[in-house]
Amino acid sequence: MSQKIAVIGLGSMGLGMAKSLLSAGFEVSGCDLSQTARENLTQAGGAAFDSPAAAAQGCDIALSVVVNAAQTEAVLFGENGVADALPKGAVFISAATMAPAIARDLAGRADALGLHYLDAPISGGAKKAASGELSIMASGSPQAFDLASGALEAIAATVHRLGDRPGIGASVKMINQLLAGVHIAAACEAMTLAAKLGLDLEVVYEVIKGSAGNSWMFENRVPHILEGDYTPLSAVEIFVKDLGIVQDIARQERFPAPIAAAALQMYLATSGAGMGGDDDASLARLYAQLSGTVLPGNSGGKP
Amino acid sequence: MSQKIAVIGLGSMGLGMAKSLLSAGFEVSGCDLSQTARENLTQAGGAAFDSPAAAAQGCDIALSVVVNAAQTEAVLFGENGVADALPKGAVFISAATMAPAIARDLAGRADALGLHYLDAPISGGAKKAASGELSIMASGSPQAFDLASGALEAIAATVHRLGDRPGIGASVKMINQLLAGVHIAAACEAMTLAAKLGLDLEVVYEVIKGSAGNSWMFENRVPHILEGDYTPLSAVEIFVKDLGIVQDIARQERFPAPIAAAALQMYLATSGAGMGGDDDASLARLYAQLSGTVLPGNSGGKP
Repeated sequence: MSQKIAVIGLGSMGLGMAKSLLSAGFEVSGCDLSQTARENLTQAGGAAFDSPAAAAQGCDIALSVVVNAAQTEAVLFGENGVADALPKGAVFISAATMAPAIARDLAGRADALGLHYLDAPISGGAKKAASGELSIMASGSPQAFDLASGALEAIAATVHRLGDRPGIGASVKMINQLLAGVHIAAACEAMTLAAKLGLDLEVVYEVIKGSAGNSWMFENRVPHILEGDYTPLSAVEIFVKDLGIVQDIARQERFPAPIAAAALQMYLATSGAGMGGDDDASLARLYAQLSGTVLPGNSGGKP
Repeated sequence: MSQKIAVIGLGSMGLGMAKSLLSAGFEVSGCDLSQTARENLTQAGGAAFDSPAAAAQGCDIALSVVVNAAQTEAVLFGENGVADALPKGAVFISAATMAPAIARDLAGRADALGLHYLDAPISGGAKKAASGELSIMASGSPQAFDLASGALEAIAATVHRLGDRPGIGASVKMINQLLAGVHIAAACEAMTLAAKLGLDLEVVYEVIKGSAGNSWMFENRVPHILEGDYTPLSAVEIFVKDLGIVQDIARQERFPAPIAAAALQMYLATSGAGMGGDDDASLARLYAQLSGTVLPGNSGGKP
């Protein structure tokens, strides 16, 4: 018995997930503000609608692939939100990174309407979304997992089942984002200092990749610096948001987080200097500007 | 024709390297201030002496495995230093992490005495030293490399040949240490925040290891936190020193390095709070103290 699923948000992540679901035999509807995005879904074999409610009508599952908590709330409870359209007993899967308290609040409100809620932030980027190999950090009731399991399998290589309560998935994702955000900033700081010292950046990259200074983000982002290519694969603003949430949570918990705080300042400065929509490796260009360093592609340097 | 090599400094790193050299057929002499260390070398088949000069007498190579620039200078040019004893044309291999300018200065002074100098900081820890699998970031003249190549092969899995001038090895090592030091601090910040949020730390470790937040140091150090075992494999004071050098270089270069600066403050605070000789994962215990968090092994928490 095939399930009907609505994918709300058909950007590079959502469209990739919708295609994986179609390949796995799901009946997929979807919605997005952009007409191009809706046409992409139609061409892939899905049914496109212009509101979350219209897409979710009669579905077993709604999968929300939007940017943040505010958009997720609007998808659920806003005008023409999915809460109006999903039948009782359906499951709402939320993929956005948000504060754990907000995930718990949204889950409670969904529960009151007879909907199951799966707190399921994703990790892996557009390429892994397209290939159905995302990593998902999920928490929620056993019923929510039962209803969502087929869809999760279709879109993810790994589903971490982290607990019975919404909010745990969001918490683990925030810990991951703290590390990821700091590691990108550290990679940009280190590589630009290496350039300032006159080192061969290609050599430094190869040496560090095989040494104790390596990180997943160092391996992934430094090639953007080496190529001088700041086309946004993941924009600076994403970590302005995510490290902002980390700081909000840390302040709430009376937990000092000075490394993440310093990293956030560099994302803010990079955005403030006009690069908020560029790739997050652009922090290297900010360091270059601040230090009179020239990077590959003549990025940075004296204004 | 087997080479004679003097290993100066027979701590866990130096002794491991001396044993690898003995296994490879080198005639090994050595010296250390500690009598136990000297006896360890004798038992392994080397000849122990009580001064660098005595150990280096008639050697082709002197390998210095001491902690910092000041000790390296004393090994070379201090009373009973190896410069008095090495024949002209011998090579001095320096393994300590130090500022590039000091490496260049020491190399120039050795050169004036007719000695070759290889700037060859090591990475990998005591276990890799014992198994002859260190990673070496080396720079120096072709003659220095020619003379040292057999010894380097005996102690290292990877020899990165970074250039013809001493100082390049030191520079690349500092870039590595910037990243390594930041990643340890970030791992401690993230895992203690995870504990404060009530997450299962073993689960968080497994999830992050497979996610974009992973780093070499996260994988290596977090198990110390999970086991509550702060027996020093690498002490807090090492990164007080190395991130201190990074800050000295960055200041000299008029390069702002706020992430490394924030990390250094946490190493200083951990040392200031009495844990300077403990494992560098002890930064987690400082975060725990500062936030009223309890870690495995009841580390941290309210005083």
